[in-house]
Amino acid sequence: MSNKKQIRVGLIGTGLMGRIHTNGYKRLADFFPEYEYVPVLQACCSRREANAKAFAERWGYASYETDWRRIIERDDIDAVDICTPNDTHAEIAIAAAKAGKMILCEKPLARTVAEAEGMLKAVEEAGVKNTVWYNYRRIPAVTLAKNIVASGKLGKIFHYRANFLQDWTINPDLPQGGDALWRLDVDAAGSGVTGDLLAHCVDTAMWINGGIKDVSAVTETFVKERVHQGTGQKQAVGIDDACIFHCHFDNGSLGLFEATRYARGHKALYTLEINGEHASIRWDLHDMNRLEYFDHSDEGKVRGWRSIHITDGDHPYMNRWWIPGTSIGYEHSFIHQVADFFYSLQSGEPCHPTFRDAFETQKVCEAVLDSARDRAWKDTGVEWVEKV
Amino acid sequence: MSNKKQIRVGLIGTGLMGRIHTNGYKRLADFFPEYEYVPVLQACCSRREANAKAFAERWGYASYETDWRRIIERDDIDAVDICTPNDTHAEIAIAAAKAGKMILCEKPLARTVAEAEGMLKAVEEAGVKNTVWYNYRRIPAVTLAKNIVASGKLGKIFHYRANFLQDWTINPDLPQGGDALWRLDVDAAGSGVTGDLLAHCVDTAMWINGGIKDVSAVTETFVKERVHQGTGQKQAVGIDDACIFHCHFDNGSLGLFEATRYARGHKALYTLEINGEHASIRWDLHDMNRLEYFDHSDEGKVRGWRSIHITDGDHPYMNRWWIPGTSIGYEHSFIHQVADFFYSLQSGEPCHPTFRDAFETQKVCEAVLDSARDRAWKDTGVEWVEKV
Amino acid sequence: MSNKKQIRVGLIGTGLMGRIHTNGYKRLADFFPEYEYVPVLQACCSRREANAKAFAERWGYASYETDWRRIIERDDIDAVDICTPNDTHAEIAIAAAKAGKMILCEKPLARTVAEAEGMLKAVEEAGVKNTVWYNYRRIPAVTLAKNIVASGKLGKIFHYRANFLQDWTINPDLPQGGDALWRLDVDAAGSGVTGDLLAHCVDTAMWINGGIKDVSAVTETFVKERVHQGTGQKQAVGIDDACIFHCHFDNGSLGLFEATRYARGHKALYTLEINGEHASIRWDLHDMNRLEYFDHSDEGKVRGWRSIHITDGDHPYMNRWWIPGTSIGYEHSFIHQVADFFYSLQSGEPCHPTFRDAFETQKVCEAVLDSARDRAWKDTGVEWVEKV
Amino acid sequence: MSNKKQIRVGLIGTGLMGRIHTNGYKRLADFFPEYEYVPVLQACCSRREANAKAFAERWGYASYETDWRRIIERDDIDAVDICTPNDTHAEIAIAAAKAGKMILCEKPLARTVAEAEGMLKAVEEAGVKNTVWYNYRRIPAVTLAKNIVASGKLGKIFHYRANFLQDWTINPDLPQGGDALWRLDVDAAGSGVTGDLLAHCVDTAMWINGGIKDVSAVTETFVKERVHQGTGQKQAVGIDDACIFHCHFDNGSLGLFEATRYARGHKALYTLEINGEHASIRWDLHDMNRLEYFDHSDEGKVRGWRSIHITDGDHPYMNRWWIPGTSIGYEHSFIHQVADFFYSLQSGEPCHPTFRDAFETQKVCEAVLDSARDRAWKDTGVEWVEKV
Repeated sequence: MSNKKQIRVGLIGTGLMGRIHTNGYKRLADFFPEYEYVPVLQACCSRREANAKAFAERWGYASYETDWRRIIERDDIDAVDICTPNDTHAEIAIAAAKAGKMILCEKPLARTVAEAEGMLKAVEEAGVKNTVWYNYRRIPAVTLAKNIVASGKLGKIFHYRANFLQDWTINPDLPQGGDALWRLDVDAAGSGVTGDLLAHCVDTAMWINGGIKDVSAVTETFVKERVHQGTGQKQAVGIDDACIFHCHFDNGSLGLFEATRYARGHKALYTLEINGEHASIRWDLHDMNRLEYFDHSDEGKVRGWRSIHITDGDHPYMNRWWIPGTSIGYEHSFIHQVADFFYSLQSGEPCHPTFRDAFETQKVCEAVLDSARDRAWKDTGVEWVEKV
Repeated sequence: MSNKKQIRVGLIGTGLMGRIHTNGYKRLADFFPEYEYVPVLQACCSRREANAKAFAERWGYASYETDWRRIIERDDIDAVDICTPNDTHAEIAIAAAKAGKMILCEKPLARTVAEAEGMLKAVEEAGVKNTVWYNYRRIPAVTLAKNIVASGKLGKIFHYRANFLQDWTINPDLPQGGDALWRLDVDAAGSGVTGDLLAHCVDTAMWINGGIKDVSAVTETFVKERVHQGTGQKQAVGIDDACIFHCHFDNGSLGLFEATRYARGHKALYTLEINGEHASIRWDLHDMNRLEYFDHSDEGKVRGWRSIHITDGDHPYMNRWWIPGTSIGYEHSFIHQVADFFYSLQSGEPCHPTFRDAFETQKVCEAVLDSARDRAWKDTGVEWVEKV
Repeated sequence: MSNKKQIRVGLIGTGLMGRIHTNGYKRLADFFPEYEYVPVLQACCSRREANAKAFAERWGYASYETDWRRIIERDDIDAVDICTPNDTHAEIAIAAAKAGKMILCEKPLARTVAEAEGMLKAVEEAGVKNTVWYNYRRIPAVTLAKNIVASGKLGKIFHYRANFLQDWTINPDLPQGGDALWRLDVDAAGSGVTGDLLAHCVDTAMWINGGIKDVSAVTETFVKERVHQGTGQKQAVGIDDACIFHCHFDNGSLGLFEATRYARGHKALYTLEINGEHASIRWDLHDMNRLEYFDHSDEGKVRGWRSIHITDGDHPYMNRWWIPGTSIGYEHSFIHQVADFFYSLQSGEPCHPTFRDAFETQKVCEAVLDSARDRAWKDTGVEWVEKV
Repeated sequence: MSNKKQIRVGLIGTGLMGRIHTNGYKRLADFFPEYEYVPVLQACCSRREANAKAFAERWGYASYETDWRRIIERDDIDAVDICTPNDTHAEIAIAAAKAGKMILCEKPLARTVAEAEGMLKAVEEAGVKNTVWYNYRRIPAVTLAKNIVASGKLGKIFHYRANFLQDWTINPDLPQGGDALWRLDVDAAGSGVTGDLLAHCVDTAMWINGGIKDVSAVTETFVKERVHQGTGQKQAVGIDDACIFHCHFDNGSLGLFEATRYARGHKALYTLEINGEHASIRWDLHDMNRLEYFDHSDEGKVRGWRSIHITDGDHPYMNRWWIPGTSIGYEHSFIHQVADFFYSLQSGEPCHPTFRDAFETQKVCEAVLDSARDRAWKDTGVEWVEKV
């Protein structure tokens, strides 16, 4: 391990994503031992010192900061990992790019296309390595779905369908804003389920099925006012509680997407289904180690949806883990993303989704919100370049 | 049985629906033995004499006709059952109403709102008993879903979601038109999946969740030309192969509907899901004897979706059948509709869905097609009167 | 229909099986219209006249009797259908055979091997057509399972596993004996779950996988005493509430069987699974229209259990019913058995399971009960002759 | 972290279990940060130096050995983790106990009751902390199952059922013996599926449902000879390829257990089901984050099996991980066992299953093998002392 090249990471934001990214860094060398680069937990950052200190101690960061600008200024940081609320992504990322740091940014890239465009310009001008944490691509079943489609097994695609259903904000007494609930505060989050949940679905969708051309959407805010934890006042809720849109993909298939936080009984039910001429694929996050696959070329009498337990050595990433039949979890998608990022350092290839890919996803999200506001179809302007 | 009142049925159309309706009539007295009215298979009708004769012999009709007008003229027919393609519904139904016959009409009621309006006017002016074969309401699990929602267990409804996925027209060599494939011929069918499949979903939805206010839709025709069996020529396909729409219900919930005949792997996958404040419900036709139910009031640690096998004596209609754990099938939904129609004769209540209910469904279907054509939201003008 | 050959049926016993057999007879001509023979509902029989009369009126029997001997004496009866409790099967069947009647006997054939042997001898000496209502063979998914195994797709069989789980006798206040609860009375039933439930599993198993050579069993009676409805007294319970056995098949595979009426949550969960060298099969009665199939020859990465919806025209019996995706129910297994019996009249072949086949099943059941009593392995003496 | 008490671990055996235990040690402090004790990876051991060295480098062990005796002799080792084949457990454990080391031993405890008895005596005489890696207890869904039963929700238990189905040894060309395939070599393993798979099922069963009193078993060896990797010769296979047994628990319930490596289509399908008077529970390893629960006290019409996604903060261990709806994996059961072991150091309580608990499991396994050999029921002699 001594002759590995070290990448010193500065992590900004110590919430759920801060923890799970850190777990990813810490497990890389154990499970991808031959990779040439290795992360070093150099510094973490939280506005509150007690927080920053405790996080550093618990997870083993060598130091901590309370101002993210310090992370960027420090010469002993090679890569900046942005895990803060959405309203801070642009400023931090642009500063980090100017300072020549590699950037791993939480999704969605930004609140708006305009913000995202500035970030994209910054990293491309600076020529720094960049990636966005759309982690679901790296769940082995999802990666396999991508590979199956890319192999041509489905033939022409007719339908792509995804939804992301949750139920955690039904209680109208839940406040908005603050550390834990900034996702309900439109200023911090930019949008509700569109940026938080649909952005994931859109990233996966375009990765597998190519660009989304135009969209027609509806959004709804079921709870109109919530107490804001910052002001202590009841304030209008600015986010979308639910969003549905249909769309055309560049390849002529129809898309259908829905996300909500008001689907009682679903905790984090991200599902996707793809229907092609010859075959179809289904997946859902609650049973993330399974992929369902229907192949019309199977003999008629015994043709049916296959439930594939994605735990074999020849399934994506699974040669890194245990034995057939034994599951991995949610956190592994982040470990895989860490691994792919570090591998990209030695291969010289981009680590998708890059800021450019995420910028295209941002266009879709913004077109969706515009469409819902104007009750009209919107062109997205997406130019999808990543290989489908 | 001798003192039962006989209703002499004239059945027009001897395809799949003709057979399954007939099966319904034939089983009524066995399984609903205390009902006062009973059907008599008086006459069936098909344009081709060989067909009509064979059908009468096989199923036990006392006579047959080759011109539907004869069915209506005959004094020994009390009720007319319309199982012919959609383009004939209006003419037959209006004539039957004028002749004072009871009418049981296959769905969709008509090809257009204008046609449906004439039919509605005819039955209401004539004061004849009428119903439309939206049979899925009478699958016990679906009826139970309705009852659960009506009981208030779900509280405020946030989402209603339904789709109807098939895969039988993917082959571009399949012709359109003719006896078997009139559903692909826009002149005969009026529309594609919207009238054939979404109409079912919309009927169930408004029955359970009330009126649909406005819609925004997209349709697609994947195979642009097919040989027409009538002309032998390749002709443009006029139907919608796929249709997606979102909508607002009168009660403020969001609706999402999709139907397609291009979803490889799904034969007749009609699914619905309803998310309320306190509970949620799911159902699908492929596993029609199950209802899934999530109740948030269950103790937290052991809370989950319940898979209810709808085969107990206290489940809707199931006291008519066998023992707990033993399934019934698709045809039973038609037997139940026959039963409810005949019961309505003794109760004097309407047998929903009536032509009026189906007229409202027609409005939604037409608004959907208009919305897709104009790429714009459309108000439906629905005035839902049936008790939700 | 007029030129069909009529078989005049005398049905003895008017409980659940009486009803569902009758339904089978009544639907034969509609769904198997080309068959040469057709049943006529000539007479039904119940000890209580009110019962017999009501049953005849409801279901359309031309006459009724209160003494089963009359059914056998009557010249206008061709076939006797025995739906009475197990303790009457032998006497009725032997008398019917002597009278030269065809016999359709409910399962299990008898209470004991000795009784069954007498019945077998009687029908073989008389040379009368005979069959036993092990109806589960005729569920299309089960028939397909048989066909798949017979085709050799599974290769060498290693394991056969079946269970039949119910929960309806958990309540200790449930009495035993009488019309409804004779299954709990050892004198009437002969045994508990062994004859009632395991007999079904064993019939299917030997049909698919060949003879069972030896068995090792355990039984349990959880509720030791119940009020007897005949005497009004609390009496010892003589039946087995639960039974488990493992066994060797003639082909070297291991068998595992379990039945109970104390498995809370299962109404009538008959499941079977067969593991072969190359492929495996699973099925359960609660989802009777599905068959699960795993084929190791599928490409590794996309290999998984297939859930096959057994509703296509090329699935067994399904060309008689509706359209792909639409289910049939429990009662259809009886209609299929009626059909196969009537077809056997024109083909001249036996209608399996015959009394001989059911006699072999009886041997297994008796060996199971003996094994449990003696806590020792027992040879069954089975000589399975039906083609596997 | 500096003021934590360090336990220096010496790990013997560097195969799959060596890796996954090590992963457990390495993650303890991150996810159970308030625990007082913390492991230190002091030394690992493999007979082959290259192996030992590579393992130490990859996983971060401070040193390595090639003779396990050195691990035991070293003063800087506090706890010995035994991950070697079964034939070495007794010698190593007894030596370790004599040297006053804590012991964490892989399951099964030993090949025979006699071996296990010596080990138990050694640890009890030495008074050293001891535990056995029956990790499945620590899967949150399984722990919850235990808690539900312990709470009395099920009432009287009637049935306990478990099986462990695999398919990896069907190929007759697979050799036996050697590093990777010692599980097929009876000398190294002691038995086949009984010790490897059923031991897990028995441990969980007695933990949840109490002692097993007597057993009746059958075993089978489908492939009779395999090349031995040590000798290069074809040798008789001495292990059981499959094993089935039924049994009585001390509480009067019936048990049914099956394990095999010849169930095509199942990779590691450990399933369990418990049927009680009032409720039932089901679980399977392939969908390890779900627990199925049926509660008869639910309102009849909406009563069904609940599928509980065991990912909430109030589910066992889950407050250590991510957010509702996001899964954990197989490896987490080992992390939990590490955590519970280290917590037991501060609580002073035993860490179950102890050698004593595992000794009782050994008795059941040996009785099972004896029963199969003698074709007779065997008393187990189990005295289960752990709280049920």
